[in-house]
Amino acid sequence: MSDQKFKQVGTRPIRHDGFDKVTGRANFGADYTLPGMLEGAVLRSPHAHARILSIDTSEAEQLDGVHAVITSADLPDIPRSGDFRTPHMDIRDLSHNVLAHDKVLYHGHAIAAVAARTVEIAREACERIRVEYEVLSPVMDLDTALAADGPVLLDDLKTASSEPHPDGPTNLAAHTVMERGDIEKGFAEAEVVVERDYETAMVHQGYIEPHAVVARTHKDGQALVWCCTQGPFMVRSLTSAILGMEVSDVKVIPSEIGGGFGGKTTVYLEPLAVVLSRKSGRPVKLVMSREEVFRATGPTSPGRVYIKFGARRDGTLTAASTVLTYEAGAYPGSPVGAGTMTVLSPYRLENFRIEGLDVVTNKPKVAAYRAPGAPIAAFGIEQALDELALELGMDPIEFRLINAVEEGDDAAYGPKYQAIGFRETLETARKHPHYSAPLGPNQGRGIASGFWFNAGLQSSAQVSINEDGTAIVTTGNPDIGGSRASQAIMVAEELGIDALEVTPVVGDTESVGYSDVTGGSRTAYATGMAVIEATRDCIDQLRARAAQIWNVEVDSVAWDDGFAKPTNGASGDLEPLSLRDISSKLGMTGGPILASASLNPPMAGPGFATHLCDVEVDPETGRVDVIRYTAIQDAGRAVHPSYVEGQFQGGAVQGIGWALNEEYIFDADGVLENPGFLDYRMPVASDLPMIDTVIVEVPNPLHPYGVRGVGETPIVPPLAAVANAVHAASGVRFEQLPITPPRVLAALEEAKD
Amino acid sequence: MSDQKFKQVGTRPIRHDGFDKVTGRANFGADYTLPGMLEGAVLRSPHAHARILSIDTSEAEQLDGVHAVITSADLPDIPRSGDFRTPHMDIRDLSHNVLAHDKVLYHGHAIAAVAARTVEIAREACERIRVEYEVLSPVMDLDTALAADGPVLLDDLKTASSEPHPDGPTNLAAHTVMERGDIEKGFAEAEVVVERDYETAMVHQGYIEPHAVVARTHKDGQALVWCCTQGPFMVRSLTSAILGMEVSDVKVIPSEIGGGFGGKTTVYLEPLAVVLSRKSGRPVKLVMSREEVFRATGPTSPGRVYIKFGARRDGTLTAASTVLTYEAGAYPGSPVGAGTMTVLSPYRLENFRIEGLDVVTNKPKVAAYRAPGAPIAAFGIEQALDELALELGMDPIEFRLINAVEEGDDAAYGPKYQAIGFRETLETARKHPHYSAPLGPNQGRGIASGFWFNAGLQSSAQVSINEDGTAIVTTGNPDIGGSRASQAIMVAEELGIDALEVTPVVGDTESVGYSDVTGGSRTAYATGMAVIEATRDCIDQLRARAAQIWNVEVDSVAWDDGFAKPTNGASGDLEPLSLRDISSKLGMTGGPILASASLNPPMAGPGFATHLCDVEVDPETGRVDVIRYTAIQDAGRAVHPSYVEGQFQGGAVQGIGWALNEEYIFDADGVLENPGFLDYRMPVASDLPMIDTVIVEVPNPLHPYGVRGVGETPIVPPLAAVANAVHAASGVRFEQLPITPPRVLAALEEAKD
Repeated sequence: MSDQKFKQVGTRPIRHDGFDKVTGRANFGADYTLPGMLEGAVLRSPHAHARILSIDTSEAEQLDGVHAVITSADLPDIPRSGDFRTPHMDIRDLSHNVLAHDKVLYHGHAIAAVAARTVEIAREACERIRVEYEVLSPVMDLDTALAADGPVLLDDLKTASSEPHPDGPTNLAAHTVMERGDIEKGFAEAEVVVERDYETAMVHQGYIEPHAVVARTHKDGQALVWCCTQGPFMVRSLTSAILGMEVSDVKVIPSEIGGGFGGKTTVYLEPLAVVLSRKSGRPVKLVMSREEVFRATGPTSPGRVYIKFGARRDGTLTAASTVLTYEAGAYPGSPVGAGTMTVLSPYRLENFRIEGLDVVTNKPKVAAYRAPGAPIAAFGIEQALDELALELGMDPIEFRLINAVEEGDDAAYGPKYQAIGFRETLETARKHPHYSAPLGPNQGRGIASGFWFNAGLQSSAQVSINEDGTAIVTTGNPDIGGSRASQAIMVAEELGIDALEVTPVVGDTESVGYSDVTGGSRTAYATGMAVIEATRDCIDQLRARAAQIWNVEVDSVAWDDGFAKPTNGASGDLEPLSLRDISSKLGMTGGPILASASLNPPMAGPGFATHLCDVEVDPETGRVDVIRYTAIQDAGRAVHPSYVEGQFQGGAVQGIGWALNEEYIFDADGVLENPGFLDYRMPVASDLPMIDTVIVEVPNPLHPYGVRGVGETPIVPPLAAVANAVHAASGVRFEQLPITPPRVLAALEEAKD
Repeated sequence: MSDQKFKQVGTRPIRHDGFDKVTGRANFGADYTLPGMLEGAVLRSPHAHARILSIDTSEAEQLDGVHAVITSADLPDIPRSGDFRTPHMDIRDLSHNVLAHDKVLYHGHAIAAVAARTVEIAREACERIRVEYEVLSPVMDLDTALAADGPVLLDDLKTASSEPHPDGPTNLAAHTVMERGDIEKGFAEAEVVVERDYETAMVHQGYIEPHAVVARTHKDGQALVWCCTQGPFMVRSLTSAILGMEVSDVKVIPSEIGGGFGGKTTVYLEPLAVVLSRKSGRPVKLVMSREEVFRATGPTSPGRVYIKFGARRDGTLTAASTVLTYEAGAYPGSPVGAGTMTVLSPYRLENFRIEGLDVVTNKPKVAAYRAPGAPIAAFGIEQALDELALELGMDPIEFRLINAVEEGDDAAYGPKYQAIGFRETLETARKHPHYSAPLGPNQGRGIASGFWFNAGLQSSAQVSINEDGTAIVTTGNPDIGGSRASQAIMVAEELGIDALEVTPVVGDTESVGYSDVTGGSRTAYATGMAVIEATRDCIDQLRARAAQIWNVEVDSVAWDDGFAKPTNGASGDLEPLSLRDISSKLGMTGGPILASASLNPPMAGPGFATHLCDVEVDPETGRVDVIRYTAIQDAGRAVHPSYVEGQFQGGAVQGIGWALNEEYIFDADGVLENPGFLDYRMPVASDLPMIDTVIVEVPNPLHPYGVRGVGETPIVPPLAAVANAVHAASGVRFEQLPITPPRVLAALEEAKD
């Protein structure tokens, strides 16, 4: 497979959506407007934890220009059901997160929503809604949450676990254990042991586009929803479930999306807009402010990582024990499960124990964020490995190569690895000029690796051939990171035409078959396979048309680089027919050509990365500057290399921000103190060097071209890569994120003592 | 086939689009609005025939608020090519019809178009465009058009014919001859001969919704077109051809359509809106006034029908000779071809000759109008048969039964008839209480039959199964006469669910495969077959999922009325799985289920109708009142009988209007004098009795359920049925339409003399 020859795959055509996005023509979530449309606002809790005693909306309803006011009383009461439509979230919890029921569980929790003639009137009406609270003590950290007699968020929550746990209400939502081998024996064999605790902060994806929706309901009960989302079918499924509607009564049209990174894989505003529209009889638009995005959408977990590694002097790991404790926010469902799946999976370990704890706290319910759960785990594991390598006196890359998984190994999370490129990324890093470049004073170099299993999930695709030989490909996956380009390239590769002769379309829920969200690093892979399958179906039809034109058997027609060509058995004087030739005759040869395909691949191709990071630590200010950064990753096969490099760069930058600056800062009452881009500091271009990239290509045997997902893995290594580099530069080991100037200064002071 | 049992087919569910249309929610062509959109107006010719010497747009361009002014200089010059994208219209002619090139050929011919801030400014700007003309003598009738030395419209037109014709420029665009047997011998065998000339007027379809379009062009050359049309793919094809664009650079989104009847199977405003948008850099809306619709869209031909029939005393027809001469309007392409295909096809004739002449005149270029060409021909043929029956002393139904075609006969237009229902409509008419009901003074009864071959053409369909067991069906055919309901019913029938559990979607040109226009009475038939094929593909997938769940072979699973059931070989204790059961497990059994299908059936099932019409003629005023009317037609299989009845009624009413009132009235200069509904008098509800209907069902063997197209045939008999009834009531035979009160009075006066 690795010697496959491609004409379109691996090229860098201009983006199909480029003109629209550069010229401002593209419509994002807030860009929809309908005649007679109302605008809405959401009333949010001023308390992090409180019981709602009463809500009086009468004054708000009387305000001139107000058309509808809703509270949780306008939503059906859904029993806790175990119906987890969104990863790790019960529909009851999701409904209560959308509009608080009897309790508010975080500062910013939605309580009521208003639709009015203008957004100003809607906001004024929100201020006139009277809510009586019984304020409760907020649970703002893991210790408080897990304390025996502390406050409990959810009265009906029991610990989901195969381990024994008390029956009563608890903040420990889940406790999982994965074991292999005999860790006692493993640690007994160890000649060196490192045991550490690490901690990461709550951080937000920081997508540029706030959540936005326009909903229109019809007298027959149908609802039409425009919104920015990673998954229109997900919005359809969750909105209908929360509102007790039939799936087929909701149509969702995805807008362009200004970033999601996992944060747009659930619903916040969509059910509110539908209910407000139904109550007012008008279309309703809801748009979040940046502050609402920070306070009330889904950042990722703060987490604790306990890790104990044992190794022999020759560098072989003998055992590992790790405990991942992640905050889920207000409702169960942190990404600790993915954390446990990824934490040890890059390394060959005969003896390990992985525990995962999912804990609720009075913070916004977390959502997916790029390789959810994995960067937190890697922040611990990859630093502990760095310490081990230092103690063993080994090069950290050499040390990792000794233990790196390869084809045939059993992954810690279960399956046997097929062809993977972990070793290749390590070897590429070792040979890369960056790794041997000289460093100046106060500078240090860190390396770290990262892993993401990648998802498959459900995808549908449709391909049709136009009468001029161009093609259209429709999928149900919003284009976040280049799926239009990659799908078009795959169609073009199969048909033997130029990628720009293929029109890629992001369908709505009624124009394409069911498709899971764009996410999990699954779209180029799984949706791509559906696209290739549908295109090959079209090619079979094209061959049949050529056979009909030539009056030969279809077996005697081959498809070769855009042409039907006669082959065995067909007479030699037949001139090849181009796609355009055949397409212009479709009407005469049996009608249009189109095909659809769908799939749910049970597996995907795992993605591995190794990052090199150089930092300079300013001993005067404690400021850490990343001065050089190289992201090396196995893409399997890069369909559009510019997009792949962009994914590597974007993941690295988000990880650097997480490492150095970003954190949710709550006061003692649980109020978020930095809900804006001025105080919640994400890196911008001027903060960073150009992020260098190297694409490694070890083809994924599960995909016809070898494609692997590439979007998640690049955010996994940077947290530890930066921390390892800071250690190398300053001699100080940071086990807590972010590595802010005050913390660095304080640590440098402490180290001096 | 005729004993097929149906659960959904033949029922009358509420219309899927009913709520939206009743509540005003549905968006028609003029209902789209985009931010920054300009509105446009079209400058139209005040002359019926003139050479354009110059156009000066400078003053218009300087008017404040004007963003773009275009003339034919803004369109590419397309050579006459024989590229007939729309029936019988060369792209060069179509381009010149859209914007006059060197000549204006009818009053109202578009010359220039303006896009401005408001439609008022655009209209003002049109008035400031200075056009110099050399006014030419208008050609307003067939005699002038065919006169040897008369004015000629198109300098480059030669007669298309296998017959010898002068070479030079001519107004005779085409001359065809179809012959069978020996008409000399046939007439020699005749004992009775009738020879007559008939004439019909130019009439308009009279759809309620004027043409409307919004076009938006993008910086990368892409154009997005919203419009009311019978065929978004047709608009894509014609607009791109006229503008020299790639098909794939145009996306067309069809709005709801407020009637088309064939008149929306070509383009008028769409290319102008695209060019105005490109020139102004803004979206542009163009909406026709009613006057523009009358003056400058496509009514149907005025026509002359010469017919000579010979028959034996026993009623057997021995020979027929007919000449159909139809006006095409300004450019070649009347429906005379369809006229020749239909004129004699209902009758068994061993000897016949059919000539067809297509003639250009200085009137708007005709477009399709419901069974294009056939009513004109039937107006002659069915009156001539009435005269023959009277002369033979035979009942007119009995006389037709003696000569009616049946299965196995060779149709005059070529193919051998499969199962058809002509005799059944005649026998139903004879037995119908209407046929023997008593008549009062000045009342008379007429009967006439009609035929339409029905079209197949290209159709695509996509069906997908939702996770709740409901389904979505997408086709490329705008819903004019109930295609949403009929497609949903067919999907429901196959799946074994309720029709309202299926969401029918009218796709745009990027959400479904190529589909020819909704028209030709092809949608329920051909698109319906694609829908059934795609649904059956889904069912095969559902059976495979059930087999997977049960761990049996797929051959051991049958699909029966909404359930997968174990069959031969499968263990007996398996409970049937409902569609909903299987659908809720799609993710676990391999992913989504969707399927697509496409086809171009070379044949369709011909439709035959027999109409009974009672009129009362007021001898004082000459007014003719239709007092009872029964439309009897073979529908093959009525999918949604209410819609089928509606088609019968609508066709009958349009035919009655054509017979009694409607006509384009031109003055001597070729100016249309009645371009509005006040002066162009279409029948309204208060003018008519309830139109009774009888659905005959002789299944069409080409369609899985036996469906035939039903939309066109009902307009074929009424012209002659009314005329025959007027003759029966008054003793006066009207060989010219419309049968207006002044004409009736004059004829009654003449008859008295």
